[in-house]
Amino acid sequence: MTMYDLIIKKKRGMALTKEEIHFMIQGYVSEKIPDYQMSAMMMAICFRGMNENETKELTLAMAHSGDMMDLSHVEGIKVDKHSTGGVGDKTSLVLGPMAASVGIPVAKMAGRGLGHTGGTIDKLESIRGFSTELSEETFIRNVNDIHIAIAGQTRNLAPADKKLYALRDVTGTVDQMSLIASSIMSKKLAAGADAIILDVKTGDGAFMKSLEDARALAKEMVTIGRLAGKRMKAVISDMDQPLGYAVGNALEVKEAINTLQGHGPEDLTELAVTLGSYMAVAAEKAETFEEGRELMNETLQNGNAWRKFCEFVKAQGGDVSQVKEPSRLPSAQYIVPVQSPVSGFTADIKTEEIGRISLLLGGGRETKESIIDPAVGIVLCRKKGEYIEKGDTLAYLHANAKEKLSAAEERLLAAWSWSDTPVKAKSIIKEVI
Amino acid sequence: MTMYDLIIKKKRGMALTKEEIHFMIQGYVSEKIPDYQMSAMMMAICFRGMNENETKELTLAMAHSGDMMDLSHVEGIKVDKHSTGGVGDKTSLVLGPMAASVGIPVAKMAGRGLGHTGGTIDKLESIRGFSTELSEETFIRNVNDIHIAIAGQTRNLAPADKKLYALRDVTGTVDQMSLIASSIMSKKLAAGADAIILDVKTGDGAFMKSLEDARALAKEMVTIGRLAGKRMKAVISDMDQPLGYAVGNALEVKEAINTLQGHGPEDLTELAVTLGSYMAVAAEKAETFEEGRELMNETLQNGNAWRKFCEFVKAQGGDVSQVKEPSRLPSAQYIVPVQSPVSGFTADIKTEEIGRISLLLGGGRETKESIIDPAVGIVLCRKKGEYIEKGDTLAYLHANAKEKLSAAEERLLAAWSWSDTPVKAKSIIKEVI
Repeated sequence: MTMYDLIIKKKRGMALTKEEIHFMIQGYVSEKIPDYQMSAMMMAICFRGMNENETKELTLAMAHSGDMMDLSHVEGIKVDKHSTGGVGDKTSLVLGPMAASVGIPVAKMAGRGLGHTGGTIDKLESIRGFSTELSEETFIRNVNDIHIAIAGQTRNLAPADKKLYALRDVTGTVDQMSLIASSIMSKKLAAGADAIILDVKTGDGAFMKSLEDARALAKEMVTIGRLAGKRMKAVISDMDQPLGYAVGNALEVKEAINTLQGHGPEDLTELAVTLGSYMAVAAEKAETFEEGRELMNETLQNGNAWRKFCEFVKAQGGDVSQVKEPSRLPSAQYIVPVQSPVSGFTADIKTEEIGRISLLLGGGRETKESIIDPAVGIVLCRKKGEYIEKGDTLAYLHANAKEKLSAAEERLLAAWSWSDTPVKAKSIIKEVI
Repeated sequence: MTMYDLIIKKKRGMALTKEEIHFMIQGYVSEKIPDYQMSAMMMAICFRGMNENETKELTLAMAHSGDMMDLSHVEGIKVDKHSTGGVGDKTSLVLGPMAASVGIPVAKMAGRGLGHTGGTIDKLESIRGFSTELSEETFIRNVNDIHIAIAGQTRNLAPADKKLYALRDVTGTVDQMSLIASSIMSKKLAAGADAIILDVKTGDGAFMKSLEDARALAKEMVTIGRLAGKRMKAVISDMDQPLGYAVGNALEVKEAINTLQGHGPEDLTELAVTLGSYMAVAAEKAETFEEGRELMNETLQNGNAWRKFCEFVKAQGGDVSQVKEPSRLPSAQYIVPVQSPVSGFTADIKTEEIGRISLLLGGGRETKESIIDPAVGIVLCRKKGEYIEKGDTLAYLHANAKEKLSAAEERLLAAWSWSDTPVKAKSIIKEVI
């Protein structure tokens, strides 16, 4: 077997076997197969695709290329949740404590943000002292003790995916559905949960701009996971406007706290409750989705989710006084209102651009080396379909660099559009797969 | 401009501009663009193709990536001939002296053989003392003095093609028509002739197995050449059986000598006369193709071509006594007849396999480092459509290694097929473009 033969085979549109795919990934990680052959293969896959079996085998080969998390010492059915990334997506901050508060073991590996999407770890690190660098012992002990731990990816999980993604990133071979699905799922499989609930975002602020693409990706990931023996569910959610009102790290933590206390934005609450209900079913804490919903609504209403959040913050070294009194979280020097230049209903918000404005203010990472300012960001005052009078505040810019304000305001107004007639907002949950 | 953007553009099926193609080739040669990006681009081109303009610009960019031969000191219209390679193809040995004998300046860069196809230089080197390592001065002086010089590619011609071909060879991206055409034509353009006559082979022994592919390649090359300002003609010739009867270096020199003396095999003679007539027209030594044919037939009949060959061999240091008395050329220790196991008409000869048997006997190169045995090879006694009695000699194997004979005989018989009813041989010239 040679990589050359495999390239020719895929180029001609034939399916690769399990053995061939494992040969390819092992050879690539061990540097027996050079980048230039792998990039030719990736381009051939972009044109020819991969079938279900190939995608599953590629995912498994990448998952097994490094450490496999051993969660056997965690009691119960471990459920992981993964979001494909969006603007203002603080769902994990809300959902993790909600699930843990009803006894679902949440053993989560989270990532940092890059580009216009934020990362859960960056948000949590807005809280003074909070650390995601947990030893394996602490990680597992916390999950057993309080049902929740969120750690950064310090372990060598799916190194083949890391190497392959870096290559795809510079050879124009990122946007192939099976490759995207296997990249995400290889890390999830290596992370060791029994069930995985996916939040696939679609719309202007998501990687999958169209519903068709989001659906295709969701289906691929669900299929891979099931073939690998995992309980799977995918929710396709709207990312045609930011989730909630806040975009920026500490700002999103504050909004998550509000939500955990039962008075968060409708879309964020609904998304967390929906995802939580599927987690509850997968973890056998509820028999039906409806029962799961009740459980989730209840834990938000009776304060259990909120108390779990405080417990979780404390367990990972965070300053609980800050979350109990959110005004003590990092806050920006300049908080500047942006006024609506017209009266009307909000018709459209260019969501990726909102993420990029937050990035401009210092709330995100242009490159992996960028340092994030936790205090800055944007808080919207209106969402799609909501009416505003000319001169009323559309949004607040939170900034520490005064010179960035005028460009940020200009771009924010350019990202907004109004309508004279009422606009119907889209539902946050689009489909469940 | 970045290579990443160019990959994405080609992947989406868009045409690259002149500037983009030159940026790509210059960047690749100067190692600013890595192999892994170039191989992804090559694979995208395999799926998306290139239009006429892109192919022309790629060819020109590669041609200009190294030395450009300056033939301005050669008088007259310089005509080059290129064959895409076949089994038993000794055409250049015959055609070069024919053309030179009627005053066409033949300034030829020739190559060595690889795999099942032989190379002109290897064949010429069967003659004791013959050298193709000519200084530029000698090369040009010989062309001016005797109208013919054949040199090896010692100069740095089209290094971009060399580098790119080596990459394509290991990434499964060789078989794309525009890439093949630009690879051949870049070297031809760098070699500096004013007119190029192409001999595109088709059939089992050729790289282009089907007539459609051969036609497409011929058209691409003719188009590129004309766009680059060259006089072009392409002949598509049959390679569904070896050309002539001899396969192997000294054996082919002997057959070329017979042909130059006016009693060569019909197919080889016809091909040389046809190509020669187009060379004569391109070089303005004949007004019409028919006039060119007469000129070529005449030079074979009156001995001028043969005398030119002797002059040419002498000018490049070869032992003329060997060519005047071909029994003094290298000859093999074992010359073994292979008998026909049945009576019948020869229906088919697996031509590539004949080339591979010659290679097995030591007449060709498996890798660039292999050393060729000039004496060995195969001489067929029958060609397609010819009748043979059971027990009569089908072919002679010429070998120096006795232990290889039985495998060679077995494979030769397996490569042959017979028919009870008469078989019509195909014409050597299939099309002219």
